[in-house]
Amino acid sequence: MPLLVMKFGGTSVGDLARIANAAAKVKREVERGYDVIVIVSAMSGKTNELVGWVEQTSHLYDAREYDAVVASGENVTAGLMALRLQQMDVPARSWQGWQVPINTTSAHSSARFVDIPRANIDAKFAEGFKVAVVAGFQGVSHEGRITTLGRGGSDTTAVAFAAAFGAERCDIYTDVDGIYTTDPRISPKARRLDRIAYEEMLELASLGAKVLQTRSVELAMRYKVRLRVLSSFEDTDESSGTLVCAEEENMESKVVSGVAYSRDEAKLTLMSVEDRPGIAAAIFGPLASAGVNVDMIVQNISEKEVGGNSIAVTDMTFSCPVNQVARAQKALTDAAASGTITYDDLIVDTDVSKVSVVGIGMRSHAGVAAQMFSALSAENINIKVIGTSEIKISVLIDRKYMELAVQALHDTFALERA
Amino acid sequence: MPLLVMKFGGTSVGDLARIANAAAKVKREVERGYDVIVIVSAMSGKTNELVGWVEQTSHLYDAREYDAVVASGENVTAGLMALRLQQMDVPARSWQGWQVPINTTSAHSSARFVDIPRANIDAKFAEGFKVAVVAGFQGVSHEGRITTLGRGGSDTTAVAFAAAFGAERCDIYTDVDGIYTTDPRISPKARRLDRIAYEEMLELASLGAKVLQTRSVELAMRYKVRLRVLSSFEDTDESSGTLVCAEEENMESKVVSGVAYSRDEAKLTLMSVEDRPGIAAAIFGPLASAGVNVDMIVQNISEKEVGGNSIAVTDMTFSCPVNQVARAQKALTDAAASGTITYDDLIVDTDVSKVSVVGIGMRSHAGVAAQMFSALSAENINIKVIGTSEIKISVLIDRKYMELAVQALHDTFALERA
Repeated sequence: MPLLVMKFGGTSVGDLARIANAAAKVKREVERGYDVIVIVSAMSGKTNELVGWVEQTSHLYDAREYDAVVASGENVTAGLMALRLQQMDVPARSWQGWQVPINTTSAHSSARFVDIPRANIDAKFAEGFKVAVVAGFQGVSHEGRITTLGRGGSDTTAVAFAAAFGAERCDIYTDVDGIYTTDPRISPKARRLDRIAYEEMLELASLGAKVLQTRSVELAMRYKVRLRVLSSFEDTDESSGTLVCAEEENMESKVVSGVAYSRDEAKLTLMSVEDRPGIAAAIFGPLASAGVNVDMIVQNISEKEVGGNSIAVTDMTFSCPVNQVARAQKALTDAAASGTITYDDLIVDTDVSKVSVVGIGMRSHAGVAAQMFSALSAENINIKVIGTSEIKISVLIDRKYMELAVQALHDTFALERA
Repeated sequence: MPLLVMKFGGTSVGDLARIANAAAKVKREVERGYDVIVIVSAMSGKTNELVGWVEQTSHLYDAREYDAVVASGENVTAGLMALRLQQMDVPARSWQGWQVPINTTSAHSSARFVDIPRANIDAKFAEGFKVAVVAGFQGVSHEGRITTLGRGGSDTTAVAFAAAFGAERCDIYTDVDGIYTTDPRISPKARRLDRIAYEEMLELASLGAKVLQTRSVELAMRYKVRLRVLSSFEDTDESSGTLVCAEEENMESKVVSGVAYSRDEAKLTLMSVEDRPGIAAAIFGPLASAGVNVDMIVQNISEKEVGGNSIAVTDMTFSCPVNQVARAQKALTDAAASGTITYDDLIVDTDVSKVSVVGIGMRSHAGVAAQMFSALSAENINIKVIGTSEIKISVLIDRKYMELAVQALHDTFALERA
């Protein structure tokens, strides 16, 4: 029997009517001849409520108890979904993490899968059950404690089940109808992509197209799980949504697939840092320890005169989210005070945004960067920092030009056309 | 290390402040030198919310899914209580039913304990944990499905743990401060009992003093678990509340311990039923099948003339809750229509209440019934039906006299005095 994994997020199971709506989608796939594994999140708002209770109860909380409390939201949805399916004459049962079992590491609140043995669920399919409704986001450690995977973990659960059970596809039902070439709120010309490569999705996800958890895409890429993102709130069929798949499957031959952005970035520059081996580690070690998510890093070599001698110095520029600037400043001034780094000045610009073009076709096409820079130049947008990877070019620009930049780039690469 | 079981009901853990208050009581017992097993209910209202969701999702619901959903409320409280205790520097952890494991039968929604192995919890006490917080009301079947014990099951869980772990005492914290000689809302002279025998508690509980689940008292009696009922909302010490214990421990030598009542009863009389062997079964079998909870039964033999012959007939009177009268009438008319019983008339009186005096001392004291009837007679209260057991005498009277009867009986047996 071909098998499908279907995942419904919090808003897709936010109340009993939505659970019924999701169950109807599951039933349709059963009628098409599939065995289905359904992965459910907690009803929207429930996880936040539980997390709030934990945080109010204990400020230095035991992650094992946090997990035991927070995982209960998914258990409720799983049971209700199974009941709804039964009510629609679909043979279904719910599975909590420990019942499958979904074996994970003991890293509570950010556990990783160890393995998902198929025997228990396969036995139920063999008995005639058509649907296994599995509580997402959770697992069980070898000590028999309940674990959770961290926020958004239900996507990862879905992909892991698709890999373990050799699913034909893993359908992620959510509140958007697919992956777009850019944010439709910024560019009305944004177009839904029929297909996107894993690598592109990874760049888009981490850059702000917050539809799929990054880890779930990584896992899908590793196990070649075909992921489909589609809407819970529309009638959907085989051609709905966006398929996230391997490059070979992706017949669209555009060089650039999408334009991503991150609005609230900050640019920090350490002026005239002494240039010596290990200096980068001396700077970014303390930042990492302080929990600063450093994104782009640019280094320029220069020289400076000290006591009549010319010594090699460097200007080190990096970006991080605006709300981490204070932490970054403290980490750097502390490092300077302790003598592990020296610099003349720390210049902070909290008014920048990052805009990126992403496309797997860049690997074989030259000229994307030039076209990007010239499009920005035509709009008189000054580029402050440039960073590149194999399939992405990012720039930092003044925040006030962000929307304009996204629109200009969407136009220049003609992303509105399939 | 001496061990105590402490159980907190829904209102006692109704919000985070109340959980903190309950945790403080637990900490006090730990400081007195006890290892403690805490049994918690769901936060008040949560179980009803979950049950509502199940009922709205599926009208003929699968009890296994019902249990999986409904049991989640206790898991949340258990985790939060463990966190709160940790926050107060008490080494504690939560236990869900399957983690202990609390092995039960597979009778979902009304499961019975099979056994509660001590090994896992004992190992944690040996490691230095002082408190095991156990989710009440739930267990796990041998198929690995979550079971529940039925409403009020957390009391039963508490007693079962007290029995399994040889607890010195099982303290049931609730929203009343003990067991009273009668309902204080009816008689202002009602007095809190320091001690009460299991047998008396059983009669009082099933008659309307809804403090302890009947099954938990039965279990306590069987395993000689000393139960204490006391208030969550007051400062309590070793002498607080009411101790439910074996008769031998009960030093109060009153003949009558309490006056119970049940307001909304109905009296049904089948006139001139043919008196033959098996007639009682022919009447009460269909009533049981229809889910009618028959309480008191009285039968009088008489005779009637049929075709010039005198045949033995009987008037059969029984009582049941008012809201089951329609069901009872249908069951009886159906039975008459099918010819399994014959009767001349069915007389229904829906305006009666039951009042009972309960006391283990009755077993060795004559004259209690006479004193009861004469006290009611002195108030001109007519007795419609009388029923007796070894330690209880019950009467049905017109509902309008119920409060008067309770007060008169409380007075005549001087229950206001210890």
